[in-house]
Amino acid sequence: MALELYIISGSPHAWAVMLGMETKGLKYTVRRLDPSKKEHKTDAYFALNPHGKVPTLKHDDAVIYESIAILAYIDQLSPKDSLFGVTPKQTGLIWQHIFEITNYLRAPLIDDAARPIFQGRFTDNPAEVREISVKAHTALAWAEGILSISPYLTGNEISAADVVLIPYLNSFLRATGKPSAKLLGDAFLSLASSFPNLAAWAAQIEALPGYTQACPPHWRG
Amino acid sequence: MALELYIISGSPHAWAVMLGMETKGLKYTVRRLDPSKKEHKTDAYFALNPHGKVPTLKHDDAVIYESIAILAYIDQLSPKDSLFGVTPKQTGLIWQHIFEITNYLRAPLIDDAARPIFQGRFTDNPAEVREISVKAHTALAWAEGILSISPYLTGNEISAADVVLIPYLNSFLRATGKPSAKLLGDAFLSLASSFPNLAAWAAQIEALPGYTQACPPHWRG
Repeated sequence: MALELYIISGSPHAWAVMLGMETKGLKYTVRRLDPSKKEHKTDAYFALNPHGKVPTLKHDDAVIYESIAILAYIDQLSPKDSLFGVTPKQTGLIWQHIFEITNYLRAPLIDDAARPIFQGRFTDNPAEVREISVKAHTALAWAEGILSISPYLTGNEISAADVVLIPYLNSFLRATGKPSAKLLGDAFLSLASSFPNLAAWAAQIEALPGYTQACPPHWRG
Repeated sequence: MALELYIISGSPHAWAVMLGMETKGLKYTVRRLDPSKKEHKTDAYFALNPHGKVPTLKHDDAVIYESIAILAYIDQLSPKDSLFGVTPKQTGLIWQHIFEITNYLRAPLIDDAARPIFQGRFTDNPAEVREISVKAHTALAWAEGILSISPYLTGNEISAADVVLIPYLNSFLRATGKPSAKLLGDAFLSLASSFPNLAAWAAQIEALPGYTQACPPHWRG
């Protein structure tokens, strides 16, 4: 049976799974939910995913949610070119970076910046914006440091860590271009001068076949 | 070379890794850091783990941190009786539950309750305590529901999801017995009547060989 992926356009977590699918060359059907119609809060969707969040994967008799768990599922389903490494050291490092991204980068890039900016509720308090900016800089500096040593986060090949980070980065960058994010300053708008290795890494991933197909549908228009 | 695990006694994350080691029958050396002496904030330790957190695993030329990444590392190192499943469906469900635990249970049980209680900074505002109590009940009810269907979180065998949850649960329960947690009420003190399946699951894990060895050293005294 086909892989059916329930998404909301713009969700960085749905995006990561789509990019994982594309990277592994898997065929899948996108079921796009409209959040303005609360399609992710219907009884039918809650029956699939009790948290009412996206993404959710349906495949044969399996229903899996939590985006990184879906990545682990598809990687086991199609183990060639594993996104989670082969040796213990690769696997350990990939998961370490995934948890560093979710524990230390997700909040400053998405929860404190991208999401409130997109939802029109970003703070206009200069002290708060400054704090958010510092935390976002620290988050990106972490990735910049790693990417000054290797082309991808965990070595010479793309891994699940890259797949998880790029939607966070590009959602954050898109958000910082919005008028309501003006107080954040210009540093994030010229990524190549502020974080050159991160910019090169992003360009490299954006050039991969399937990258565009994985991007949020409403960004492509 | 030996597996060397840097821990702080009482850290639920270090505990989870020790329980994973015990469950897999791995030999390891514990390097216990004393937080009162800031031994996790020395230059030597920052060189191992730049976040200055525990646990950190050192093994041959590999240094891995983030507790669940360490579990993934040791599981790949010693694949027999995998803690992360064999089939895609098992693996997907185990990771799904791990992310549900870290995304939805960690905050109410550890960040909002156990840690502030142990650190003597738990709120005495009744409205705040009530909110924390409701969230903790919801968190435990999630596990209770799953454990009413299967003996372990992901089926008939212990998995990494159980290994991650039990330190959160038992840290929370120990904290709720402290005098400063009195406002939280009695529901958590009689787990067997409030959450019978969760209590049975915990008793089952506590009876496993190696459970005591994995418990926080200063609790054993």
